[in-house]
Amino acid sequence: MNAHISSSSTAVHTLDEAECKSLLLRTPIGRIGFSFAGEQHILPVNYRFVDDEIVFRTSVGRKLHAIASDQKIAFEVDRWERETRSGWSVLVIGEASEIEDVESFEAAESLGLRPWAEDLNQDRWVRIIPTRITGRRIG
Amino acid sequence: MNAHISSSSTAVHTLDEAECKSLLLRTPIGRIGFSFAGEQHILPVNYRFVDDEIVFRTSVGRKLHAIASDQKIAFEVDRWERETRSGWSVLVIGEASEIEDVESFEAAESLGLRPWAEDLNQDRWVRIIPTRITGRRIG
Repeated sequence: MNAHISSSSTAVHTLDEAECKSLLLRTPIGRIGFSFAGEQHILPVNYRFVDDEIVFRTSVGRKLHAIASDQKIAFEVDRWERETRSGWSVLVIGEASEIEDVESFEAAESLGLRPWAEDLNQDRWVRIIPTRITGRRIG
Repeated sequence: MNAHISSSSTAVHTLDEAECKSLLLRTPIGRIGFSFAGEQHILPVNYRFVDDEIVFRTSVGRKLHAIASDQKIAFEVDRWERETRSGWSVLVIGEASEIEDVESFEAAESLGLRPWAEDLNQDRWVRIIPTRITGRRIG
């Protein structure tokens, strides 16, 4: 119903993988979604998209363990504008693991990705290797 | 290490529940995190925070089933500013269910919360009753 008020400005468009990757490359903050202690969690992370992998810093702890042992976690970026009721989102499903080998760790350290909060002690690195990347745009 | 470069502008502050609720009241878009077909998912939703519950529209489908049968799902809102490396996030953990009784359904319909995309056929309502609300601010 009300199909006559639909317009191209309020339609949903699927983004292709190249568009999704372009958005992943230029967005500074994403969110990881994972299961921890029987509950779902969503946490923002300051990340980079390098060589088709998501990499971000984290601190030692139970959440790192949960992320790195979860076979398929989610990573999401989006941007919205209330005034125009428009926006886009990209969802990555992938396997997360802690970066432990020296070469990859040093490559991550060389990205210049520093924590937004200095007191978080984020001296570990996690990578997510995507198995699926999807996105959509509204408006 | 580097403790001397920490400053109040890059510290992490915990938000109390009243601050979290205030942010939930004035943010238009949040993200639900849930498990579906053995994978984690994060999806943006246009929502309202009413009577201490998150309510949002959705369409019929397997995801609605996954959300409403998941005992504890996540709901997150955040806002970030790249230039100042500052921002905040609020995480709600709660139980989601479809709004099916007529009175609650009509109350939801009266919120004036219309889909951003007219073609999504979002004629169902979901509520999340929070069991925990936490938040933090950086910068």
